[in-house]
Amino acid sequence: MLRNDQLDAWDRESFLHPSTHWGQHARGESPNAIITGGSGSFIEDRDGKRLLDAFAGLYCVNVGYGRTQIAEAIAKQAHELAYYHSYVGHGTEASVTLAHMVLERAPEHMSKVYFGLGGSDANETNVKLLWYCNNILGRPKKKRIISRWRGYHGSGLVSGSLTGLDPFHRAFDLPLSQVLHTTAPYYFRREKPEQSEAQFSAQCAADLEALIEREGADTIAAFIAEPVLGTGGIVPPPKGYWEAIQPVLEKHDIWLIADEVVTGFGRLGTMFGSEHYGLKPDIITIAKGLTSAYAPLSGSIVSDKVFAVLEQGTDTMGPIGHGWTYSAHPIGAAAGVANLKLIDELGLVENAGTVGAHLRAALAEAAGGHPQVGDVRGEGMLAAVELVADRDARRFFDPAGATAGKVVAAMRERGVIARAMPQGDIIGFAPPLSLSREEAETVAGVTAEALKAVLG
Amino acid sequence: MLRNDQLDAWDRESFLHPSTHWGQHARGESPNAIITGGSGSFIEDRDGKRLLDAFAGLYCVNVGYGRTQIAEAIAKQAHELAYYHSYVGHGTEASVTLAHMVLERAPEHMSKVYFGLGGSDANETNVKLLWYCNNILGRPKKKRIISRWRGYHGSGLVSGSLTGLDPFHRAFDLPLSQVLHTTAPYYFRREKPEQSEAQFSAQCAADLEALIEREGADTIAAFIAEPVLGTGGIVPPPKGYWEAIQPVLEKHDIWLIADEVVTGFGRLGTMFGSEHYGLKPDIITIAKGLTSAYAPLSGSIVSDKVFAVLEQGTDTMGPIGHGWTYSAHPIGAAAGVANLKLIDELGLVENAGTVGAHLRAALAEAAGGHPQVGDVRGEGMLAAVELVADRDARRFFDPAGATAGKVVAAMRERGVIARAMPQGDIIGFAPPLSLSREEAETVAGVTAEALKAVLG
Repeated sequence: MLRNDQLDAWDRESFLHPSTHWGQHARGESPNAIITGGSGSFIEDRDGKRLLDAFAGLYCVNVGYGRTQIAEAIAKQAHELAYYHSYVGHGTEASVTLAHMVLERAPEHMSKVYFGLGGSDANETNVKLLWYCNNILGRPKKKRIISRWRGYHGSGLVSGSLTGLDPFHRAFDLPLSQVLHTTAPYYFRREKPEQSEAQFSAQCAADLEALIEREGADTIAAFIAEPVLGTGGIVPPPKGYWEAIQPVLEKHDIWLIADEVVTGFGRLGTMFGSEHYGLKPDIITIAKGLTSAYAPLSGSIVSDKVFAVLEQGTDTMGPIGHGWTYSAHPIGAAAGVANLKLIDELGLVENAGTVGAHLRAALAEAAGGHPQVGDVRGEGMLAAVELVADRDARRFFDPAGATAGKVVAAMRERGVIARAMPQGDIIGFAPPLSLSREEAETVAGVTAEALKAVLG
Repeated sequence: MLRNDQLDAWDRESFLHPSTHWGQHARGESPNAIITGGSGSFIEDRDGKRLLDAFAGLYCVNVGYGRTQIAEAIAKQAHELAYYHSYVGHGTEASVTLAHMVLERAPEHMSKVYFGLGGSDANETNVKLLWYCNNILGRPKKKRIISRWRGYHGSGLVSGSLTGLDPFHRAFDLPLSQVLHTTAPYYFRREKPEQSEAQFSAQCAADLEALIEREGADTIAAFIAEPVLGTGGIVPPPKGYWEAIQPVLEKHDIWLIADEVVTGFGRLGTMFGSEHYGLKPDIITIAKGLTSAYAPLSGSIVSDKVFAVLEQGTDTMGPIGHGWTYSAHPIGAAAGVANLKLIDELGLVENAGTVGAHLRAALAEAAGGHPQVGDVRGEGMLAAVELVADRDARRFFDPAGATAGKVVAAMRERGVIARAMPQGDIIGFAPPLSLSREEAETVAGVTAEALKAVLG
């Protein structure tokens, strides 16, 4: 085994980590950590410290750490055939089986799945397919995508443009002009405090329709949205939101991309968020929960309606000119099959619903009364505690972010990992779907302790 | 085990394969194949048929199939810790070690590596970093990228725009306006037959400089190029090409991105193509050979000069707003460490040079005299046989592609996989770097037989 000081030197000399202060990291001014193992809801670092990971990596280790069944499926595939490509009709038993299993679980009207690697590239595939379809349908101007402020759809140039968060745009010249943004369905931060949830939902739908009419429905291909806003703050939609939004899309023939990278495969206590909220998407983006992150794999599930256009397209144009070397990678596919079986066997979709509700209740009880807590919210196994400088005036901290960062650091010292969401002072929770009631209570208790330690 | 007819039905009902005719596939009109195993240069399908894979998957299985050392490294990592993220200074022993190993092997002036999943996302990272750097450097207009016609840099919206091949643009509204294309360094298809290689290289450099001057150097951030054109036709640069191109870039302060997804880690008989041709890139893209495709992993290696700007950037702006959930995925990192060790242990870089030369010589001898063979070319373990309708008149087949497709199909019937490159009638070879001399001779012999069978 390598010495810690050797690893530390190599890390700082050679490694550009995501979402990291690269100057400080290289100069040794910020901490680093080598993670060595994990079991259930816990990870362990090289110094033997165990932490309860209440964010499941990046809301992705849905079945929890250390699942032998998935590790064995990966090992078996690695020994039999670690790689062959999936171009021109090639596959493996695992990739074909997984395609079938995904469609078994997806809403009834979905037709087929294109496999990618991560959520960002799946959303790029979605945009490519949209543009292709609208060219085939003879509406070449209908190409722009509407996303929501605070949506998160990836970190690439187009997927980062779909994202509606300042830290992912700033200094990168994003969003690109192909993407428009509309109102975030964020009731707690609504502009007009007097609005009811239903009124605010109507406002969101009216804002969307005004944008469409201003830009021209003939220039808008799709609307992309997470069923519950994730990285933008873990914000479930206000009452009546989807019921108000979907008719606007239908009226203007604007397709719906449901980005279920976070919500797919059980996080909301239902197999898909689309099912949870009655969405009828044309395309569904999947990633994280598809393999519980045991290996990279993502997907774009297209509906019967979309596939009919794609079929017409390849009948006219020939084979589709789109492919990633690692589409449907055998290791990812094997992990996916084992993961989806395990979710069923362990009843994790149901557990996400029941223990998730318990976690939210425990958080509300332990932390909801704190004067700097403005909102405790969530859905399924997703929760957030939003901090405010002044609860009655609904005034936020300025500059934003530092306070939640301190609370999350204080939680980590107490053995629990939560995430300071990147825009605002929001403490995010997205534990493994296998979280126990006792672990939920630990998370809530540590949150309250850390709030007290930081804010008094 | 599932029955073949069951897998076939699921495949056609549910699975959108890359580069496939989706209509025909769904209707059962085109073949599919389930690959079950592999060893050395051979893969095996569900019916027990063995094929010599002279394209190494998609020029990626560089160490060959069935390498137990890599499978065991993957299995060990999957059991210990299949996933934790690499955000905010987190890593694993494997990911830190791999970062160090990559930099040990890269050209001296390279500084650090950002890990991604595949080559397409690595090139997106490169464009993001370029734009960020030029914002930090106070030259906000200097953003466009020049690529070459016939370059291949990915299949996303921006990476597909960098690609200069019609099948990847058509019906997808690509290239986007941020990308410009210049002359392909494709001596065999030069416009002026009377030019020598040196004259043609000078022409390519003059075309590049004319484009820069027409568009304004203050609008051009970078030039991206593969050391040897890959998917565009497997075309080594003409003599003097890089010597002519690099001074133009330096003169106009245009950074060089060397896309070494195909050439990195030994394919040309040297560790990097940059070393092979004396390039001094600012950024190097790596993927395929980094793990020999045993697990998805890519990277962007930045130079000392680029890192200095990135350091200044995060000192000014804070943590970098860029990240993929699966950056530096533990399984990919473990595969990468084992793969790079194996390449050294087996002397595969050297083997690529010597057996690659033998393959090209054998192809030239077996197929070079055929009247429809216009060119036999290559470098290291890359080779191509280009077909022509009329060799003396240098007239190509019209429509392009069908003839090479037939030859490659005839080769497959005879047990050898080659690739009909997507634009033109070019039979491509990129076998595992571990190919033996006898296997090289088999490939050449089967190529000649198939040419005879299809073209007489």
